[in-house]
Amino acid sequence: MTTIRLGIAGLGHVGCGLIDLVAKQRQLRLPGTLSISAITARTKDKPRSVDISSYKWAASPVEVATDPDVDVFVELIGGSDGPAKEAVEAALKAGKPVVTANKALIAAHGQSLGVLAEAGNVDLLFEAAVAGGIPIVRVLRDSLAGIMVDRISGILNGTCNFLLSEMLATGRAYSDVLAEAQRLGYAEADPYLDVSGMDAAHKAAILSAIAFSADLDFDKVAVSGVDSITLLDLQLADRLGYRIKLIAEGKLEGGKVVCRVETKALEKAHPLAGVDGSLNMVHVEGDPVGAVTLTGPGAGAGPTASAVMGDIAKIFRPGVRPPFGRADHHVRRTFSEVSDEERSSWFLRVRLADKSGAIASLSEALAQHKVSIDKLLQDSAGSDGAAPLAIVTHQTTRQEIERALEMPAAKDVIVGDVQLVRIETAD
Amino acid sequence: MTTIRLGIAGLGHVGCGLIDLVAKQRQLRLPGTLSISAITARTKDKPRSVDISSYKWAASPVEVATDPDVDVFVELIGGSDGPAKEAVEAALKAGKPVVTANKALIAAHGQSLGVLAEAGNVDLLFEAAVAGGIPIVRVLRDSLAGIMVDRISGILNGTCNFLLSEMLATGRAYSDVLAEAQRLGYAEADPYLDVSGMDAAHKAAILSAIAFSADLDFDKVAVSGVDSITLLDLQLADRLGYRIKLIAEGKLEGGKVVCRVETKALEKAHPLAGVDGSLNMVHVEGDPVGAVTLTGPGAGAGPTASAVMGDIAKIFRPGVRPPFGRADHHVRRTFSEVSDEERSSWFLRVRLADKSGAIASLSEALAQHKVSIDKLLQDSAGSDGAAPLAIVTHQTTRQEIERALEMPAAKDVIVGDVQLVRIETAD
Repeated sequence: MTTIRLGIAGLGHVGCGLIDLVAKQRQLRLPGTLSISAITARTKDKPRSVDISSYKWAASPVEVATDPDVDVFVELIGGSDGPAKEAVEAALKAGKPVVTANKALIAAHGQSLGVLAEAGNVDLLFEAAVAGGIPIVRVLRDSLAGIMVDRISGILNGTCNFLLSEMLATGRAYSDVLAEAQRLGYAEADPYLDVSGMDAAHKAAILSAIAFSADLDFDKVAVSGVDSITLLDLQLADRLGYRIKLIAEGKLEGGKVVCRVETKALEKAHPLAGVDGSLNMVHVEGDPVGAVTLTGPGAGAGPTASAVMGDIAKIFRPGVRPPFGRADHHVRRTFSEVSDEERSSWFLRVRLADKSGAIASLSEALAQHKVSIDKLLQDSAGSDGAAPLAIVTHQTTRQEIERALEMPAAKDVIVGDVQLVRIETAD
Repeated sequence: MTTIRLGIAGLGHVGCGLIDLVAKQRQLRLPGTLSISAITARTKDKPRSVDISSYKWAASPVEVATDPDVDVFVELIGGSDGPAKEAVEAALKAGKPVVTANKALIAAHGQSLGVLAEAGNVDLLFEAAVAGGIPIVRVLRDSLAGIMVDRISGILNGTCNFLLSEMLATGRAYSDVLAEAQRLGYAEADPYLDVSGMDAAHKAAILSAIAFSADLDFDKVAVSGVDSITLLDLQLADRLGYRIKLIAEGKLEGGKVVCRVETKALEKAHPLAGVDGSLNMVHVEGDPVGAVTLTGPGAGAGPTASAVMGDIAKIFRPGVRPPFGRADHHVRRTFSEVSDEERSSWFLRVRLADKSGAIASLSEALAQHKVSIDKLLQDSAGSDGAAPLAIVTHQTTRQEIERALEMPAAKDVIVGDVQLVRIETAD
């Protein structure tokens, strides 16, 4: 299969994001090419971020799933039952691979849908259902197939994490911050699935089934949410050295899988404690790897659509791929020589001789090469009489600084070696 | 292929770790089963962590690679040329998939070996060559095939990162800490490949070729190391708000790939600035995902062997896998009900009525249920006259605390709602 014909049901933000990515596919690194054979959604005519007028419109999701021109069915409808389930079943029964972003569906019916997929020897892939742009499903299932997982834990709901970190950061009450999150689009008008912990529980159950080779049994998952957490709780916990987070976890206890979502007070040095805002993080502990952590955007149209695309990439056959993943239809690139002309801020450390006007002399040399100083820190002189001096420059090139340091005004006052390190800012 | 017969060349720590994992394969989640048909190494008789006496010993790596009983050749010899290259070429020419942990080989000859692999339509896999237990190769190549990568950056050499973070943490000189790292086995007797930045450069070049669909051209990579960094540099940079780290990066500039390893001064809020010790971290920025970060052990026998195993798992055919990755030969597990009896420390927050002896009364109720207090923080009373009180308990169950709170001695002094959050420590 060198071209895959997609059928897409559900044209919300993720569906439109996927259509946009298909249009840009030459810039991606898929093993083959994609076309779109049929699409559908609840409403045909409404404002969307992409123009859908050129695609064949199907009357129902099942019609897309069973369309003979569709090779892979992409389900982006949502909901654990109803049209999503019906269409996914229809596709699998028709022997078609399915890619879905629907965590509720997989958590509730993944077990029986898995049986259908295995019977038809087709892929049922759901990377986008868990943690958005973080490729944790494939990492757990495939890349980490060679480890024995003891425990997975994570922050799997960006809305809850935003609520808790924003309350503490701004000192506002739960209801206040929730209203703001709804205004900003970080929380749904009905926030139940998120704040109750149910959404995180869906994801935790899916990851647990993979990590522990277990029958997925969502009824056994213990679920609680963030809706009872007050600002006072967050503040007192903070003063005692803890961050309260909604933690999803799955672990082995006595050979059985224990899966739970609950708020936990994490010591501030805990790997999950520093994750703020709407980020997600998944922490996998196992033997013989120790721990691996993945961090990234847990939701949003772009990240989720890219996860759907990553799953679609897997369906191309044959399964052997070029070692570096490049196919003939990709944009070909070459490595370039690295230039010394790249501008940035620099950390410059020297030792200055014990002479009056030494700093002025060095500054003058730098200024002659248009190297301007952002910050400067001089320490008291060491036993050799030379004083350590560190300078943070504004934007310039390595070359300009090196030329400045070659000037007599600089050479006369610098003792010994010089250190020059490029600065990278946090954003 | 439901059983894969391995041939392993190289029996150092990683090779022995792999043999150990093969012995434990029922606990892993491989799509099929593994056997070992032939092994070899420079020296047959030397102390090793596993007993190799039952395996067929081959006279050379090429003999392993071309053994008709070997389905997959695993190269763990190392070195960019010589026996490793010769044997990998022999295996690929014989139409056999190759799994290798050899970053020098792939950085130097990945391009020509890739041509051989494609010609034979066999896999050449090297997850273990980059960042040990972090599955970044497969994530970049497959899971993130649907994103356009702008830049990858990372801390890809644990030895350098250990040296820099340990110098700053302990105030010792470079040579001191290097000697300690060598004693602890974190650095080789000849540390050149690590401290020169060459090892990180091999990995950065491999990741850049994948991320940007580029011809791998190691000669273009700009390499510098940590050997010139002094304690003074680290300390002054720290005081100015920066952490100096050895950063490997690949990025697109004017349509070409710029790949570089150099020390950088990172703002302390930078995602890579907080990575200390021998951990590795890779940060992938792209459209439309934003950024995804993977953190984990970048070296070591266990993590590297598990990465080799993850690659081996990919070679089983057919390529369609059960959705949750479970095969019939795996240990089957079930989800268990979550018990309320799990012991931990707890964060308990109440409001105490304005009565004398209120804390004593609550403590008494807790003590009766053997709930002992680790930390306690009482705030001044609010407008309702009740004083917020937070307690960190020693190990106990939720049930015991809830029972204590039901006692009259507690109920009489508690006003309003109670918050009870499980504590998780940092390690």
